[in-house]
Amino acid sequence: MGLVVQKYGGSSVADAEGIKRVAKRVVEAKKNGHQVVVVVSAMGDTTDELIDLAQEVSPIPSGREFDMLLTAGERISMALLAMAIKNLGHEAQSFTGSQAGVITDSVHNKARIIDVTPGRIKSSVDEGNIAIVAGFQGVSQDKKDITTLGRGGSDTTAVALAAALDAEVCEIYTDVDGVFTADPRVVKKARKIDWISFEDMLELASSGSKVLLHRCVEYARRYNIPIHVRSSFSGLQGTWVSNEPQGDQPMEQAIISGVAHDTSEAKVTVVGVPDKPGEAARIFRAIADSEVNIDMVVQNVSAASTGLTDISFTLPKAEGRKAVAALEKTRAAVGFDSLRYDDQIAKISLVGAGMKTNPGVTATFFEALSNAGVNIELISTSEIRISVVTRADDVNEAVRAVHTAFGLDTESDEAVVYGGTGR
Amino acid sequence: MGLVVQKYGGSSVADAEGIKRVAKRVVEAKKNGHQVVVVVSAMGDTTDELIDLAQEVSPIPSGREFDMLLTAGERISMALLAMAIKNLGHEAQSFTGSQAGVITDSVHNKARIIDVTPGRIKSSVDEGNIAIVAGFQGVSQDKKDITTLGRGGSDTTAVALAAALDAEVCEIYTDVDGVFTADPRVVKKARKIDWISFEDMLELASSGSKVLLHRCVEYARRYNIPIHVRSSFSGLQGTWVSNEPQGDQPMEQAIISGVAHDTSEAKVTVVGVPDKPGEAARIFRAIADSEVNIDMVVQNVSAASTGLTDISFTLPKAEGRKAVAALEKTRAAVGFDSLRYDDQIAKISLVGAGMKTNPGVTATFFEALSNAGVNIELISTSEIRISVVTRADDVNEAVRAVHTAFGLDTESDEAVVYGGTGR
Repeated sequence: MGLVVQKYGGSSVADAEGIKRVAKRVVEAKKNGHQVVVVVSAMGDTTDELIDLAQEVSPIPSGREFDMLLTAGERISMALLAMAIKNLGHEAQSFTGSQAGVITDSVHNKARIIDVTPGRIKSSVDEGNIAIVAGFQGVSQDKKDITTLGRGGSDTTAVALAAALDAEVCEIYTDVDGVFTADPRVVKKARKIDWISFEDMLELASSGSKVLLHRCVEYARRYNIPIHVRSSFSGLQGTWVSNEPQGDQPMEQAIISGVAHDTSEAKVTVVGVPDKPGEAARIFRAIADSEVNIDMVVQNVSAASTGLTDISFTLPKAEGRKAVAALEKTRAAVGFDSLRYDDQIAKISLVGAGMKTNPGVTATFFEALSNAGVNIELISTSEIRISVVTRADDVNEAVRAVHTAFGLDTESDEAVVYGGTGR
Repeated sequence: MGLVVQKYGGSSVADAEGIKRVAKRVVEAKKNGHQVVVVVSAMGDTTDELIDLAQEVSPIPSGREFDMLLTAGERISMALLAMAIKNLGHEAQSFTGSQAGVITDSVHNKARIIDVTPGRIKSSVDEGNIAIVAGFQGVSQDKKDITTLGRGGSDTTAVALAAALDAEVCEIYTDVDGVFTADPRVVKKARKIDWISFEDMLELASSGSKVLLHRCVEYARRYNIPIHVRSSFSGLQGTWVSNEPQGDQPMEQAIISGVAHDTSEAKVTVVGVPDKPGEAARIFRAIADSEVNIDMVVQNVSAASTGLTDISFTLPKAEGRKAVAALEKTRAAVGFDSLRYDDQIAKISLVGAGMKTNPGVTATFFEALSNAGVNIELISTSEIRISVVTRADDVNEAVRAVHTAFGLDTESDEAVVYGGTGR
């Protein structure tokens, strides 16, 4: 049996009871003959409490000090977990991100992992210890400062360590049973996915599914580390994310992996752009210079009568104001008519590698929305994803309709083999 | 102006308000033209809360993990302090014990500092930053594990950094105005000491004065770093501890620096020890082997008629049981009659380098106790200290009587020049 990396989130180690429950599960893996490396997040709301404290002493806390502060959270949970494991009669040692060899760039609050040099972790597990590593943190390569990895940082730590240690699997423990075909809070009949490919998982993650972040899946794909997302409260199998199904996992990939939705974006439309080379470039250069990340971009053919076209894109609501301000400055240079800003939108995405070879998916998707009375405002597609923008009010109904139309509801007997009428 | 090390204890940084107040004081020193290095303890009760958490998950938390856990406390306070300072428009950087180059041995929970390599701190202050360092923690030389320094650890960190950085002074900020001629809670007329020598301060610390611990003063003496103990709540001058008085400090050392008392000890008497070579050695070897630290030791001449003597010693109450058990095992070998254990005692000590050259101090001391009706049970003296053991019930009265007898009460016009009748 090989090495296993397990990652437990803040809700799994929220209190002493939770920590003891996690300790038991870790020890179980060790007893089953695995070498075990555990990555932990900060306990429950610790990080939020530290952020509140920081804001009490300074309205704009500095990046370096903010990171120093936040990393105290994982330090507490990892030391407590190591103690709880020792209390069960097994040896455990905790390591900070720096001690674990998680080397990052110097961008505080959202550092990227540059390298992982897990020599101390390797020695520790080779000596028979369970190694506990602080998630979400590393040390900068140049200045040797403490850094944090930003959102999803602990998952990324776990995957990066799994890659560096050549682990069999990276188990991500969370408070849900795995990845579902849609958000179970919206679609009661949503089904747990047993296996999903890296590619489909990446599309789901960037389309609004929150179980795994894009960044962590991307890392796992690059180093081909299977991820097993599962509940820390039940003993059930969760969702495997990997290149190929393993063991008794379904050999044939479903046509459609799932339906994701996202209500965190807004839509900007630049109305009446002269349809000539360089105008779109000017617009998106202005957006990029203001450091706004955009998602979907749609431009339709121009009206022959006017020679003007409209360009629409979506972006996180929080960045709306910045983007609009940047665009206003280019109005004279680009010569567009007006700007429209709309934050009452939702994005609904259908993801599945099967759609590449199965005609009719798009049609069925649009039919389902139409039958549900949902109007489509923008459309964008990739090889394995179709996304539409609708009114925010329609999102739940739209997701349910699409989920049912593609036979993803739990009642259906079987993962459907879909036959349609041309995409 | 040179470099100043300031140390703030947990009560000074107990909440956001406290941290902001400390930030102002730190910035003041910087504005006065000093390079400033600040050592902080954990906020208020943080350390106790972490200890409670540890005991919830494990009855006997391991040393290594316990240290990892506890060091989270300073990490929080130092990052917050750095933020608060930046908010006042000054540059600050926080450093863990490890980053600050505090190298220790591997004895977890009470590590000793082996070396300080403050390269990063030096660069930081040379670049114009205020450097904030986590007190109480270091990194072990051999295993590179996080260690904590035990009681008084933050004070020791401050003094050690001051020595390594060749600081002008190490300022220890606390919640009292300085070192007093006696415990102000017992002696209302106790006087703040303006200056005291390292030697006298060492004797006071080991005689029960709690403002500075022996360990930190010892370190300061070895490297000749002046300590300034003062309040973080007032702007007053506190007590200077150094080799020689400085500036407008009194040039002549008072004969008596102060009266200390200690009610944390117990007394063990080994009754009827054969008065022949090797018996005392056997007794104290047994005590040492059980890792009990003893304080005063007194042996009187044996009674000529029996050839038997009694040996008494004092030790921390908490170690009484262990010492008695160790002695019981040697009863046959040593051949003593019986053991007496008494934990209702107090130790009262008079400290002052002046007593070496001023006859009559001992007589005045004993007269004062006698006039107060206090019986003396044991006596032990050093060059600059006289200690007696009395009943615990008598301690307050005894301390007050001695304090008055040596003219230490605030009403007296002047630090007395004492003339007695032979010591």
